[in-house]
Amino acid sequence: MSVEIITIGNELLSGSTIDTNAPCIAASVIEIGLSISRMSSVGDAPEDIINALKSILPGTKYIIVTGGLGPTDDDRTATAAASAFGKTVELNQEALAAIEKRFAGYAAKMPFPNQRQAMLPSGVKIIPNPRGTASGFIIEDAGREFMFMPGVPAEVEAMTESFIIPRLKEQSGFKQVILSRTMRVFGLWESAIQERLDGQIQEGPGLSLAYLPHFPEVRLKITGMGADPEKVRQEIERAAAIIQEKVGEYIYSVNDEPLELVAGQLLKMKKATVAIAESCTGGLISHRLTNISGSSDYMQMGVVVYSNRAKVELLKIPQAVLDEHGAVSEPCARLMAKNVRELAGSTYGLAVTGIAGPTGGSAEKPVGTVFIGVASAEAESVTQHRFYGGREQIKLMSSHMALNNLRKLILQQ
Amino acid sequence: MSVEIITIGNELLSGSTIDTNAPCIAASVIEIGLSISRMSSVGDAPEDIINALKSILPGTKYIIVTGGLGPTDDDRTATAAASAFGKTVELNQEALAAIEKRFAGYAAKMPFPNQRQAMLPSGVKIIPNPRGTASGFIIEDAGREFMFMPGVPAEVEAMTESFIIPRLKEQSGFKQVILSRTMRVFGLWESAIQERLDGQIQEGPGLSLAYLPHFPEVRLKITGMGADPEKVRQEIERAAAIIQEKVGEYIYSVNDEPLELVAGQLLKMKKATVAIAESCTGGLISHRLTNISGSSDYMQMGVVVYSNRAKVELLKIPQAVLDEHGAVSEPCARLMAKNVRELAGSTYGLAVTGIAGPTGGSAEKPVGTVFIGVASAEAESVTQHRFYGGREQIKLMSSHMALNNLRKLILQQ
Repeated sequence: MSVEIITIGNELLSGSTIDTNAPCIAASVIEIGLSISRMSSVGDAPEDIINALKSILPGTKYIIVTGGLGPTDDDRTATAAASAFGKTVELNQEALAAIEKRFAGYAAKMPFPNQRQAMLPSGVKIIPNPRGTASGFIIEDAGREFMFMPGVPAEVEAMTESFIIPRLKEQSGFKQVILSRTMRVFGLWESAIQERLDGQIQEGPGLSLAYLPHFPEVRLKITGMGADPEKVRQEIERAAAIIQEKVGEYIYSVNDEPLELVAGQLLKMKKATVAIAESCTGGLISHRLTNISGSSDYMQMGVVVYSNRAKVELLKIPQAVLDEHGAVSEPCARLMAKNVRELAGSTYGLAVTGIAGPTGGSAEKPVGTVFIGVASAEAESVTQHRFYGGREQIKLMSSHMALNNLRKLILQQ
Repeated sequence: MSVEIITIGNELLSGSTIDTNAPCIAASVIEIGLSISRMSSVGDAPEDIINALKSILPGTKYIIVTGGLGPTDDDRTATAAASAFGKTVELNQEALAAIEKRFAGYAAKMPFPNQRQAMLPSGVKIIPNPRGTASGFIIEDAGREFMFMPGVPAEVEAMTESFIIPRLKEQSGFKQVILSRTMRVFGLWESAIQERLDGQIQEGPGLSLAYLPHFPEVRLKITGMGADPEKVRQEIERAAAIIQEKVGEYIYSVNDEPLELVAGQLLKMKKATVAIAESCTGGLISHRLTNISGSSDYMQMGVVVYSNRAKVELLKIPQAVLDEHGAVSEPCARLMAKNVRELAGSTYGLAVTGIAGPTGGSAEKPVGTVFIGVASAEAESVTQHRFYGGREQIKLMSSHMALNNLRKLILQQ
């Protein structure tokens, strides 16, 4: 059974306010096995509201509407709804009592405009509002149920939780379980993953696979649905095993964890520490690692050696190396990783040097040239890359590649 | 003339992804004097896309559609559009050439699924994509124009800017000038700014003022519209002067520049350099400063002294200071700023130490306690703060306050 969500308000069409009500309602509706056929936003003008209420997609049984039930003049949803369904507007005693009760609770006199919130289409069923003065209401029309709520996000959340979802659950006879698992893939683009998985996973009503690109990685979300939780779990496991077989070497988390958390957990497990030397990433790797609570256990030190002077004085990179190979070079990345590790006395050293652009590139070393060094007590190694995009994309991509190289080094040892 | 925006993708209906394309397009469309009649999101299923394309609100002339033009199987917009308007799908040579050209730029072979992106409805006009492989296209039907773009936000932004808006502008005969100016305010919340500006600026059809909160700051956008550019400019100047008078001390940019750019430009103008010592911000300040192209001119060095060992060994903070006052203290912030400046040989030193949480707080120093130190050749000074929010918010707020303290110090000297 499918549900449409309509949010009302001029501010939603201006581009400056982002609608959070529809996604919040959608997430709850999907959890009880119903699907969303459309989410739309329209303005405050009565004719726009009426048009929206009259152009519901075929096959939609429930329409959830938010907004335009406030106490001011630009709140016109109740009148528009009455007009769309050929009803009159009347003072609703149940809604009025709820408003009065709330103002009694505030020990305040009801301001006149609030009484307006009890003027509702005739013959509606009231939806209680645990958090505000505006009651919601339900209108049935041609086998469909239109559920109206105010637009305040906290009120929408409370009314959805306490009334809408229980009602939908009961009416739809929902008994199924929905489970999902998200795997994070780095190093293969969406189309390349698709090529490897082509025809391998049997999607259907009980199982779906979504590709969610989040630069610079791709997330694969397997969702299963069914009556028997154990069977749903098995279906998901089976799909996950196929994905593991086909693209496993590129998966760094099977539980939707950020790369900085995965790297951090590995360090913690090994009781190891890390020190970071950054040039072109400018502190981003340290910033990401320290976004994880508890990172002080393994994050020993970070240095941002942006100038050559800092590379020489702080990290003891010989001036001769810089003169002969340049700061963006394999030998420099290697020494940065080795020396920051020694300086911090940490288990691992991680270093990045490159050209983030848009200036600073040359024919031999174009913008996007990046060297990543890792060091442990045993050895150092360096990978060379050519990344594309703007400055911030190259920084982000470099930090991702560096954290992934660190992750792979820890796993090897 | 009114415009409808349709965004396509199952992920938009799941509640887990918030649609940013529609608001971004809406903001640009409104600036050229057109209005938005509806924004809606539908899923990937061909019948849902077809239904959406067929249930356009009366009076809508332009329909802008994003999503479902990717290289994988769940990208079905092109086929659905063909079917909705009675067209066949064929290999579009112009789109194919664009894809091939892009892959040539990467010096990479085109993976087979990408060729799928050139399979478009017959007889369409191509919308060039400056940022990706998927071309957009235009279908005209019954006096309406349907404009299709892929769903990747950076591509949507680029295509809207470079193609959609110029086309709409030309077709609608838009002749008015719209000018705007955005001022960035830090240190006063939206309601406090509103209180100071209450009734001061006369808004009307030719002039509007928008409050755009972007944690941890607020942006004030003055927009003027009219036939005479000079008059519009004067109106904006008048409003800007009033804002300057009322909240000027909290404005750090009158041209919508990021704080890290403003601080960087001041350093450049003074031919000064800076070194950063970060504890709780973990590299974020260095990351932000180095997001600015050309920052190597003034960004001397950054150190992330997360551990006490790093504070003692790298920054020479006496162990006695840590023992007596703790790492999160006024004396420690002062010494960090002073010593990192000396270590780097830079004009200024900037240091942050605090508790980003969620753990590590105490009754005396709760989570959110942050000390910020600045140092120059003349003196050091420290400010103490108590910030609120989660770990990432406290890091962001601390980095903002630190960059602002640096900016104020440079301005004083």
